[in-house]
Amino acid sequence: LDYQHVQVPFEITLWIMLASLAKIGFHLYNKLPSVVPESCLLIFVGLIMGGIIYGLNDRSPPVMDSDIFFLYLLPPIVLDAGYFMPSRPFFENIGTILLYAVVGTVWNVFGIGFSLYGICQVRAFRLQDVSLLHNLLFGSLIAAVDPVAVLAVFEEIHVNEKLHILVFGESLLNDAVTVVLYKLFRSFCEMPAIKSVDVFAGVGKFFVVGLGGVLVGLSFGLTAAFTTRFTKDIRVIEPLFVFLYSYLSYLTAEMFHLSGIVAIIACAMGMKRYVEANISLKSHTTVKYFMKMWSSVSDTLIFIFLGVSTIGENHEWNWPYICFTVIFCLIWRALGVLVLTFFVNRFHVNTITSKDQFIIAYGGLRGAICFSLVFLLPDFPRKKLFIAATTVVILFTVFVQGMTIRPLVDLLAVKRKRESAPTVGEQIHIRFLDHLLAGIEDISGHWGQYYWKDKLEYFNSKYLQKILLREYDQPKSSIVLLYEKLERKHAIELAQAGQLGHGPAHPSLLNSNRTVITDQKLEDTQNPDVLDNMQEILARNLYRIRRTGPAYNRHTLPGESEPGEHAKEILILRHKGL
Amino acid sequence: LDYQHVQVPFEITLWIMLASLAKIGFHLYNKLPSVVPESCLLIFVGLIMGGIIYGLNDRSPPVMDSDIFFLYLLPPIVLDAGYFMPSRPFFENIGTILLYAVVGTVWNVFGIGFSLYGICQVRAFRLQDVSLLHNLLFGSLIAAVDPVAVLAVFEEIHVNEKLHILVFGESLLNDAVTVVLYKLFRSFCEMPAIKSVDVFAGVGKFFVVGLGGVLVGLSFGLTAAFTTRFTKDIRVIEPLFVFLYSYLSYLTAEMFHLSGIVAIIACAMGMKRYVEANISLKSHTTVKYFMKMWSSVSDTLIFIFLGVSTIGENHEWNWPYICFTVIFCLIWRALGVLVLTFFVNRFHVNTITSKDQFIIAYGGLRGAICFSLVFLLPDFPRKKLFIAATTVVILFTVFVQGMTIRPLVDLLAVKRKRESAPTVGEQIHIRFLDHLLAGIEDISGHWGQYYWKDKLEYFNSKYLQKILLREYDQPKSSIVLLYEKLERKHAIELAQAGQLGHGPAHPSLLNSNRTVITDQKLEDTQNPDVLDNMQEILARNLYRIRRTGPAYNRHTLPGESEPGEHAKEILILRHKGL
Repeated sequence: LDYQHVQVPFEITLWIMLASLAKIGFHLYNKLPSVVPESCLLIFVGLIMGGIIYGLNDRSPPVMDSDIFFLYLLPPIVLDAGYFMPSRPFFENIGTILLYAVVGTVWNVFGIGFSLYGICQVRAFRLQDVSLLHNLLFGSLIAAVDPVAVLAVFEEIHVNEKLHILVFGESLLNDAVTVVLYKLFRSFCEMPAIKSVDVFAGVGKFFVVGLGGVLVGLSFGLTAAFTTRFTKDIRVIEPLFVFLYSYLSYLTAEMFHLSGIVAIIACAMGMKRYVEANISLKSHTTVKYFMKMWSSVSDTLIFIFLGVSTIGENHEWNWPYICFTVIFCLIWRALGVLVLTFFVNRFHVNTITSKDQFIIAYGGLRGAICFSLVFLLPDFPRKKLFIAATTVVILFTVFVQGMTIRPLVDLLAVKRKRESAPTVGEQIHIRFLDHLLAGIEDISGHWGQYYWKDKLEYFNSKYLQKILLREYDQPKSSIVLLYEKLERKHAIELAQAGQLGHGPAHPSLLNSNRTVITDQKLEDTQNPDVLDNMQEILARNLYRIRRTGPAYNRHTLPGESEPGEHAKEILILRHKGL
Repeated sequence: LDYQHVQVPFEITLWIMLASLAKIGFHLYNKLPSVVPESCLLIFVGLIMGGIIYGLNDRSPPVMDSDIFFLYLLPPIVLDAGYFMPSRPFFENIGTILLYAVVGTVWNVFGIGFSLYGICQVRAFRLQDVSLLHNLLFGSLIAAVDPVAVLAVFEEIHVNEKLHILVFGESLLNDAVTVVLYKLFRSFCEMPAIKSVDVFAGVGKFFVVGLGGVLVGLSFGLTAAFTTRFTKDIRVIEPLFVFLYSYLSYLTAEMFHLSGIVAIIACAMGMKRYVEANISLKSHTTVKYFMKMWSSVSDTLIFIFLGVSTIGENHEWNWPYICFTVIFCLIWRALGVLVLTFFVNRFHVNTITSKDQFIIAYGGLRGAICFSLVFLLPDFPRKKLFIAATTVVILFTVFVQGMTIRPLVDLLAVKRKRESAPTVGEQIHIRFLDHLLAGIEDISGHWGQYYWKDKLEYFNSKYLQKILLREYDQPKSSIVLLYEKLERKHAIELAQAGQLGHGPAHPSLLNSNRTVITDQKLEDTQNPDVLDNMQEILARNLYRIRRTGPAYNRHTLPGESEPGEHAKEILILRHKGL
């Protein structure tokens, strides 16, 4: 037995296998996933696994490594999220999302940090040694809403598109803020004295981190699109480029201390349109399917590891600090959403209702990102307290909020997602209105959303498409593509139902093109030449065959050809042969 | 800049990217891949890369790590080979393949080993310190034909199916022999004295390694099939199980010192049939496509690394030894093929022609497996000589034989692969003949190939299918499946050509079922109720609309409805409204 040799890949494969089997297990009982979110079930499995490992070894089970999380588990999920991001609602609400992600997160960080510092001043709690900077550092890691946790819960409750994109978009874009604040406070903690220059540098850094991420992502995305122009002869490695370039964009951004999440989202959204036009249909299916599969596995592993890592002796239990952390997280988020939404609603016609506000505030789930960040903290006496508080906040939000949000959505009758896809008619009207609004904005000299969208579209069709698409001369509009897709689906359904017309049904449809296609595919021996040949051979050897069309003919009756004649002919032929 | 942090994934991604871009590069010039095999071009790219690294750093570039090769690069290629193995020709020729793989490889190992030992006795060559055991060890690693190299070349030259499966099957199954002999001689080298017991144990071990591999593979394969029975509700992770279980079978076999290659092939061939029936069509596309993609990337990386590793100072150049190695490899293989084929042809009606024999002997390419094995050798004074000889043999076979085999196949007019797939008629006849032969064998009491095949098929449909398939009550025969596939393809082609009948073409086809499907898919607003409703509203508000059918009607002329009437009606209605 040579276990050492295969240990690394063997154990990785076994963990993935466990995660996948756990997932199958839940779905065998249909009722379970409809009540409890899958993330809770997975954490629960992780807790049991951790308990078993702890019980057997009598020492803490291995903690999820932050490097593994950030380098291998997080990118597939974010890539999936970025690639399948509904771009229209995202860009329509980009202002609100950015407000929540940037101002909201800063608000939460400082709110939680300062109030926890206040709690630390209470003598009875014995927390006087936790400095303001440490509290702010803790605030910076606990404040950010987690995209993985949000996605896991919100994909199951089907709220309306706008609400979904507000919470989900915030959870993705706040990464830039989290990265900056976390690293800022961490370096402040290690500095002897903080100058005001450093603070301003921190503010400036935010723009660098966010916009730099977008820039890195877009450049990799467009390179990916350009590369797929040349893959016509080797279709088999097409899907690879989508994964390679997105991953490179993430790693490059991380390397330059930019926001990797923002980079990979920009990359995925930038390349999607061109890559899909360049690659084959099967490559596209593979990309979509494999992305979903990969993110699903990563997601599962993250929650299981979260459960496993919870068990152990890494925690320092100071109840007041932990309880107040949970309470402050809830209060500051609620306040933040209320205040920010008030401003947002003043500038928008389509306002965010108070029900929606409640769900936005309540949907602020924390997850594995906080968990990995808290383990990355430099060692100091109270690190274990922070770990304990983070664990409790994550478990509270995922279990309590995650499990109650669905009944609450039902109870409040929050507007749900529409079930059906928009009809072709609707799509045409939306497109038409976009053009109309762009025109109105252009005439009135207002540089609004539609004006920029129109300009971007012009730039795209004038320059980008010519560089990035293989067949740029006649790009198909999305409506034509949708129509083709529906036709294809319809055709497959007809074929499965066995209703695809065999043989010519109507004289007007009997053009040569169709006949050739039909026959080649159905059977080689049916093509006209072979048929003629067969008929000739048969005619010479058996009897004078009647050249009848392959299909039922309305103008001739079945009994018309008099079988008696055949028998006579055969007899004559045989007689001659003898 | 924090390069340290992302180094490992970044460099792996960059290598894969380089490999993929190199592949695209070749295919941009269509003429290049049709003359030079891709494997040669990739090794050439690797040589250049190695030269650059050597030039810049002034030290040997990193050598391909044997662990990385055996644990990560080889399994995807073998999985792909096993999954897409044409099972009929493989099992029809299994006897011949095993003879070549087992007896042929043993013959080559001892032939090359003893003759090289003879060369070492020549004083002028200064090789007297290379012992017989070391020569045999070298023989055991240089004798085996490499599946990766064979696949790369034979996929491009399109020889007939039987010839292809003979060379390719041999290259896969000889792994068991190579593993046993290599490990045996390696342990003999380290032993003080060799007893005859050890030699017999070695012979016995061969069966354990080969059959054990098959057993491990089959059990994982059937477990995989069983697992996919339960994935109906989470289609998205279905493809994962195919990869996980095959990889586990490989690792488990390697762990127990069995043949990993044999295990993964048994696993893939065992599960294929059941998994394909259980998983969805899109999952299946993903599995197939991703397997091809992965093996293609592995393949590319292996050849590039082979090139990179060649450059450097690992070599000891002893020209006589190296030249005689190449010569003996060619001679012993040619002799082995001649002798073994002589025996095979005596027991078969469908003999192997002398042209085929030449291609089998000439197609014995060596590749990365030898290369990895030679680096795994324990350190001893002449290791660098063995490395040099192995490198030269690999480069000789891949470049000289790989590049000349295509012209030789043309020159000898070796029977090619038939271009077209077998027709349905042929398939039915093959199936019919199988049953007939099974019956004849049963009656005559001869337990031949067809008898066992029939028994296996019975066992499969009686027990295995019931356990492993989700819907086992009515398994579709492969002909029905083929027909469905052709129908689907045909339907898609019709849809793309725009010839899918819109609206009813013939009264007999106008059944309610078809109309509903058509309309729902094409546009929501076209279904009868909505249409009626719309017409009612229009009629009340505009003018008395004529209820015309949606399609062109031969019996009414376009001008018949007199547009003047409409205008009059509208005027009257408006007048009333005012």
